Amino acid sequence: MQRIAIDVMGGDLGAAELVKGAAALSIEADNTIQIILVGDAKQIVAALVGQVYHPKFIEIVHASEYLSQEDKAKESIDQRADLSIVVACQLLLDGRADALVSAGNTGGVILACSRSFERIEGIRRVAFAAVLPTEKRRGRKKDPFALLLDVGATLHVESNDLYNFGLMGSIYASIVSSNEEPSIALLSNGTEQGKGPKEVVDAFSLLSDNAALNFIGNVEGLDIPRGAADVIVCEGFMGNVVLKLLEGITELAADLAKDAYESKLIWKLGLTMLSKELRKLRRLTDWKQYGGAPILGFDKVVIKAHGRSNARAIRNAIKLAAKVHEGNLVSRIQERMEQSWH
Amino acid sequence: MQRIAIDVMGGDLGAAELVKGAAALSIEADNTIQIILVGDAKQIVAALVGQVYHPKFIEIVHASEYLSQEDKAKESIDQRADLSIVVACQLLLDGRADALVSAGNTGGVILACSRSFERIEGIRRVAFAAVLPTEKRRGRKKDPFALLLDVGATLHVESNDLYNFGLMGSIYASIVSSNEEPSIALLSNGTEQGKGPKEVVDAFSLLSDNAALNFIGNVEGLDIPRGAADVIVCEGFMGNVVLKLLEGITELAADLAKDAYESKLIWKLGLTMLSKELRKLRRLTDWKQYGGAPILGFDKVVIKAHGRSNARAIRNAIKLAAKVHEGNLVSRIQERMEQSWH
Repeated sequence: MQRIAIDVMGGDLGAAELVKGAAALSIEADNTIQIILVGDAKQIVAALVGQVYHPKFIEIVHASEYLSQEDKAKESIDQRADLSIVVACQLLLDGRADALVSAGNTGGVILACSRSFERIEGIRRVAFAAVLPTEKRRGRKKDPFALLLDVGATLHVESNDLYNFGLMGSIYASIVSSNEEPSIALLSNGTEQGKGPKEVVDAFSLLSDNAALNFIGNVEGLDIPRGAADVIVCEGFMGNVVLKLLEGITELAADLAKDAYESKLIWKLGLTMLSKELRKLRRLTDWKQYGGAPILGFDKVVIKAHGRSNARAIRNAIKLAAKVHEGNLVSRIQERMEQSWH
Repeated sequence: MQRIAIDVMGGDLGAAELVKGAAALSIEADNTIQIILVGDAKQIVAALVGQVYHPKFIEIVHASEYLSQEDKAKESIDQRADLSIVVACQLLLDGRADALVSAGNTGGVILACSRSFERIEGIRRVAFAAVLPTEKRRGRKKDPFALLLDVGATLHVESNDLYNFGLMGSIYASIVSSNEEPSIALLSNGTEQGKGPKEVVDAFSLLSDNAALNFIGNVEGLDIPRGAADVIVCEGFMGNVVLKLLEGITELAADLAKDAYESKLIWKLGLTMLSKELRKLRRLTDWKQYGGAPILGFDKVVIKAHGRSNARAIRNAIKLAAKVHEGNLVSRIQERMEQSWH
C-alpha cells in the first residue's frame, strides 16, 4: 500500500477541487492508495460533504496556513511554521507518508523539500522535469511524451549536474513509461559532439562514458517535439524558456496562420477547423492527463502537479506518485549514483 | 551609392544562384547599389553568361579558395590565405566596400570578421541576430517580424553583453523596420524583475536605467512568436536552441496534429488543409523574404544570409545590407555606446 501526502492548498482551483480528485480515487475498484489530505481541516471536511469517498483510504492532517501562488516562498517558509506544504513534507520525514503531491507554488515546493529532505548522495542540485507531447510515440504503452529536465529548479548547471539529470530522468522514465532503456539526449546548439558551452561538452563525455545509459548525443530545439529522445537534459533557465514556448505553441501556430490569411474565405474555413483541432490536440497532450512531473534529486518522491490541476489531474498525480514510489525511484537513483561516482 | 561585397561562394545552392540574384538587382530600375562579387572569377563569369545584368553595378573580385559549410572555420582561416570570405572582409577594410553579405558557414563568417574588423568600442562580444515571424505586426510597415539576438555568436554572456545586444538590436530594428523606438525585452523564465540568473537580473537594471531605450522588461518563450517585443535579447546558447525550435514549429504542429487524429476522416481533411496552410505561412514568413540577419558589434555592417538562400533571398540580402549601411548602423551604435558607458 502506498501512502501519498497531498497538499490540497495552494492550487488555483481551491482545496475542494483537489479533495474531489482524492475522493474519486478512493472509490476506484482497484484502489490501494492511502491518501493523506494536508491542509485546512475545516475546508477539507466541508469539501468531502457531498462527495462519494471511501473513508478507509482518506486521512486528513490539519495545517492552519498555506503558501499561495503569489506568496514569496522564502519569506513565508521562514516565518510561518504551519504551512501545509511543510506539514506534508514532515509526514514523509516521519515515515507516515511515502510520497508527496502538490499543486502549489513551485518555488515553495522546491524550497520546502530542500529544507525537509536530503538530496541523494552525489546530487548537487535537484531538477524539475516536464512531460512534453512529441510526434513520435515511445515506450511499451506508446506514450506520445518525452521528459525535459531541468525546467527551472537549477538555473545554471555544471557538467556533473547535467549528467545526474540524465541519469535521474532515465530512471524516472523507465518507471513511468515502461520503457526500460529510455534514450537520453543533451539539448544543445548543434548535434555534433563538441557543440555547446563547456558544461554541455563535458556532460557529453560523462554520459557517453557510462555504457549503462542509452545516451544518444546532442539534440536541437526542434528535436524535442519531434520526439528524438525520451529524456532531454538542459540547464533550468533554458529548460524553462523552452517549456513555456512548447506549451503554447500549437495554439499560437493556429492564431498566426489565421492572422496571415484572415482575408481569404477558403483559408478561413480551413483555419477555423485547424485551430479547433489544435486546441483538441493540446488538451489531449496536456498535463491533466499525466497528472504531474517529478522534482528529482531528493531522497523522497515529489510530484508537482500543475497549479491549474482539476480533480481528474490530481487523481492522476496521486496515482503517478504511488507508481513512482512503488518503482523504487529513490533507491534506484541511489544505486546508479554509487556506480557512477564511486 | 552603397558598395556591397558579397561572398558568392559557400552558399548551399552554389555561386551561380547568388550571382543570379546580384544580376537581377543590378537591372532594377531604381538600383544604385554597387555589387562586388567575391569568389572564383571563372565561376562568376560563367554564371553571368545568360543573365541580364547591368555591368555598371557589377564588379568581380577573384578569390581562389572558399570555406564550405563543412569546413572547420578556424583551421581553414588560419591555413588558407585566399578564402573568399577573407578577401571580401579585406575589401571593407581597404575602404573599397561598405558592407558585407555572406551566405556561407556562419562560424567562418564570424571568425573572418573577428580577424579583420574591430569591435565597436565598449562591445565585448558580438551578437548574431535572427528575424522571426510574430503574430503581432510592428513598425510603420506593419512587419510581422521581431529580432532575436544572440542566436549563437556568444554562448554565455555577461550582463553588459545583454545590455549591448539590446542597444544594438534596437538601433538595427529602427533602421530596418522604420520603427523609431523598438521595444526591447530580455528572454527569461518569468516576467517579473528579479527572474532569471544573475546576468539577466543585472541586465534588467542596466536596460531600465537607460531612459533612451524602450525597455519593456522580461518576456517568456511564448512571447517571442506572440510578438510581445520588437527586440528580444538572450545569450547565444539559449537563442540558438529557441531559434531552431521556432523555425520548424509550425510545420511540426501540423504533423503532430495529423498523427494524433490520423484515424478520423473529417479531421484528416481539416488537417490536410491545415498542413498546406502552415507550410504556406512558413514560406510567407521565412528568411527568403527578409534576406538575412545582421552580425552586430563589428565596426562594419555584416549581413549573414541563410545558407539555402536563392537568387531572390540574396537580392534582398544585398538591399538589406545597403539599407543598414545607409542608416548609419555602426556610427549610431558608436554614439549610443559612448552615451551609455562614458
